[in-house]
Formats: sequence, C-alpha cells, structure tokens
Amino acid sequence: MVAVHELDRHLALSPTGAGRHRLELTRDWWVGGGVNGGFLMAAMGRALGLELPKHPHPLAFSAHFVSAATEGDATLTVTPARVGGSTAAAAVTLSQGDETRVVGVATCGDLARLPEDVRTTAVPPVLPPPEECIPTSSSPAEVRRLAPLIDRYDLRMAPESAGWAVGAPSGRGELQAWVRMADDRPPDALSLLAIADVLPPVSYDLGEPGWAPTMQLAAHLRALPAPGWLQVTQSTRNVAGGMFEQDCEVWDSAGRLVVQARQLARMPRPAVPSGESR
Amino acid sequence: MVAVHELDRHLALSPTGAGRHRLELTRDWWVGGGVNGGFLMAAMGRALGLELPKHPHPLAFSAHFVSAATEGDATLTVTPARVGGSTAAAAVTLSQGDETRVVGVATCGDLARLPEDVRTTAVPPVLPPPEECIPTSSSPAEVRRLAPLIDRYDLRMAPESAGWAVGAPSGRGELQAWVRMADDRPPDALSLLAIADVLPPVSYDLGEPGWAPTMQLAAHLRALPAPGWLQVTQSTRNVAGGMFEQDCEVWDSAGRLVVQARQLARMPRPAVPSGESR
Repeated sequence: MVAVHELDRHLALSPTGAGRHRLELTRDWWVGGGVNGGFLMAAMGRALGLELPKHPHPLAFSAHFVSAATEGDATLTVTPARVGGSTAAAAVTLSQGDETRVVGVATCGDLARLPEDVRTTAVPPVLPPPEECIPTSSSPAEVRRLAPLIDRYDLRMAPESAGWAVGAPSGRGELQAWVRMADDRPPDALSLLAIADVLPPVSYDLGEPGWAPTMQLAAHLRALPAPGWLQVTQSTRNVAGGMFEQDCEVWDSAGRLVVQARQLARMPRPAVPSGESR
Repeated sequence: MVAVHELDRHLALSPTGAGRHRLELTRDWWVGGGVNGGFLMAAMGRALGLELPKHPHPLAFSAHFVSAATEGDATLTVTPARVGGSTAAAAVTLSQGDETRVVGVATCGDLARLPEDVRTTAVPPVLPPPEECIPTSSSPAEVRRLAPLIDRYDLRMAPESAGWAVGAPSGRGELQAWVRMADDRPPDALSLLAIADVLPPVSYDLGEPGWAPTMQLAAHLRALPAPGWLQVTQSTRNVAGGMFEQDCEVWDSAGRLVVQARQLARMPRPAVPSGESR
C-alpha cells in the first residue's frame, strides 16, 4: 500500500482531453469566501506539469482570481503558447460550469536543471524555533470550522506576528511563520505554490482583520525546496485605494529563497455575517 | 491641428473585430533583442481599454514574454473572462503571424474611482535633481542606434546608478532615475506600463551588462500619476539559477507610489555579435 499525502490526494486530476482536466474541489481547502487561491494555483500547476512534462515546474506563474471557487466539480484547461527547449509558456484557467474562477499564465521549466549560481542579498527571517511559535491549530473551533484550510497545514506564527489573534496587531504589516503540511508531506513545487498564499492576510497585522480577497498573485519558483520546515514572510508597503500588495517569501530548511511571490488584494470590508454575499 | 504625442501615435490600434486589434510595430521602441516589453504592455493595455471601456485601467497586469517581437504587423487579442461592477478580467495576447509574442492577463478597473485611502510605508527614492543626473541621451551613437528606445524617453540616471556606463557598477543591484517621455507627454496609465520596463536591467549594476530578456512582468498600477517627472527605482535581491527578479517602483511628482512591478528575467549571457540568435 502506498501512502498518499493529503495534498496529492486532493490534487488528483482526471484528464478529459484537449488539455482539460477535471478536479473535485472539497471543503478541505476552504478559507474566507471560497477555496484557497494557493491550493487552486497548486492544482493549476499540476495540470501544467501533466501537459508540459518536459517543463515540469512553473518558474513564473501569474494567476488572476475572478470569482470565488466553491465546492464541486472544476475544469482546468491548459493552452500552450510556445514550447521551447528550456522553457514553455501556457495559459491555464480554472472554471466551474460557465463561471471562470482563475485565469493564469505560466512560464515553465525544470528547476532541477538550472545553473547552480546563487547571489542572494535577501536575508532569511529570524524566527524563534517552531516549538516557541504559535500554532494556528490552536485557533478556536469556530474559526477552524469556517476555515478548514487551517487543518491542512502545520503553521506556527512567530509570536511577534500573532498579536492580531489577541487584539494586538503590531501595525508593521509583516507576518512571519514556520510552515509544513500537516501530514509532513515533503515540500515540492506544487506545495510551494500553495504555501505562497497560506498565511493570514498581512492586513491582519495592520489591525484590519477579515477576508482580503486576492485579485492577482504572481509567484516565482526559484529553486526546489530542501526537505523540512519552510519559513514564510508576508509584508506590505502600500495600502492604497482599497487594495494592498502582499509580498511573500518562502525560505527552505537549507536557507535558500525558494519562492518570491506578490499579490494584489482588496482590503477587508467591514465584517459581514458568514454566508452573506459581498 | 491636434498635437499627437509619439507614444499615442505608435499605439494607434486598428480594430478588426472579435476583440482583435492590429498594430504596426516599428523600430522606434527596439532595445536589446526586440521591441521593448514595456511598450508591448502599453499596447496591450490600450487594447484592453478599448475592449473594456468601463474598466479603463489595468489594476494588475501579468505578461509572459514567450518570443521576441520584431518590426511589422502585430495582432492584439482581448478575451474577457469576467466583467463585473468594479473590475473586469481579461486575457490578452500579442502575436505576429503564427508566433505568440506575449501572453497576458489583466484585472482592470477605474483608477479615478478608487477610495482615497493611502497608507504607504514605502519611501520614495532620494535623487539629485534631474539636471544633476546623467541623461541616457548622452549614450554613444552606436548604442542609440542599437537601442532606439533610448530616444523615446528623457531618462536621467542617478550618478550612483550610472557607474556601469563607465565600467564601475556599484554592485548593489539598484538603479534609480528620473524619467518622462522625450516629448513631455503627460504620464498616464499606459505610459506607466511602458515605464515599468524602461530602465536598463538592474544586472548592469551587478557588473553583468548585456541583454537580460524579461520572462514575466507583473505590474500593479496603484494610482493615476500627477503630471511631471516620475522617479523610478529598480532593484534585485535574488540572482540565482541564471535568473533574477527585478522590482520596479514608480513614484509621481506628488510623491505617490503609482506602480509596483516585478519581473523575472534571465541573466545576460556572454555577449554575442548583434543580429546573432541566442
């Protein structure tokens, strides 16, 4: 019997021809007003990998979120634009019925075959060890019921980044955490896509809790991750016009910057009762 | 007689139906190995604006560059994915003959109708006045012949950022400059898209001159620019695997952060004679 990790089980795609794949979206990856965007990007990444087997990893993946994905059937469609030697580019969409959920484009390649040069001037975060950080699994049952996504990850917020949970956000606009899959699935390119959008919105740390819908997210996968814990930082520098950018960096256990991602998100509106449309 | 600025003249699109527009690409915007990506994004932004008139500005625009655009006919194709009240999303491509040049997605809206809130913690660059900076128009004639793009802009590099031009790059991976159109066309959303990719690659400042092809560029337009000079910074923090990210910020004359853009680009390879394929 082969053990299958949770993420892989939920990313099982059924090809239906012409670049199309069917996927059943479940409530497991739900957060805020729909299925988590990072999980959707991982699903789109999997469809890309199946359609472009010689270019198995999205080096740069841009996704525009146009409506909230819900439980049920979804269709992923990959349309190659150009397949070259070292890279291939393709459009990829995720839809449910007649509704488009995500429109994406990816430039794919093979992260295992890149040159070895590394000249990173960015510095990894300085975090207390995971056991001294605050697990999101300690969230109240009510929160976890509304956001089953929480139970998919072992996510430990740095104490400085967790003030919002007790009504004392730092106001700096920065969150830092350790993260791994709850079932300790080793990180890979697909889980990195998911993890680029798994921390709470950085707006929490600005004292603006609530759902901050992602409008667009572009992720650069810069290296395959080493096994073990990942460190994730999210920050913003420009809240304006009802939106904010959120920069996400993911560092692996070998101290390598493996993801640089940026999203544009809407600032939360005043809280609305669960289930009400916004 | 109405004075038409250079950029607008070169962005004149001819609609051919079904979301398609024809554009004649000229050598005027050529740099490195093809037509400048920022200019192509401006052209795609113009096609988006024509097809989505109630959502005239790309709030977030992701473009993947899949082959170099050359002089001659190009076709822009806009395919709306969802048109809502405050935003609309569309795929947009630029092709020449059977060759796709750029595959993009944009989430568009109206920058003039956003809420007034601004809470920017980012700080604008500190630059000497334009007259104390180094104009790229002083480049050798040979350079300007290979890169006619230079003559489209009045671009003044901060002296600290111009060391590469005399063989003394700073090594910091940062460029700063003043920029406006050469004919003093007032900045708008379209010119901001162009300007998000108009400085030399930041790799120059790392002592790696040469063409650094953009693989992907995502631009967030955060506000309509005030008239006058713009300040542009470009920086990188992660050169690895033969690629680097390049962050671009554009600030307007009122001190507003109007663009946040990030691209993934290939590090230059050793110089090849002009005209030779790479």
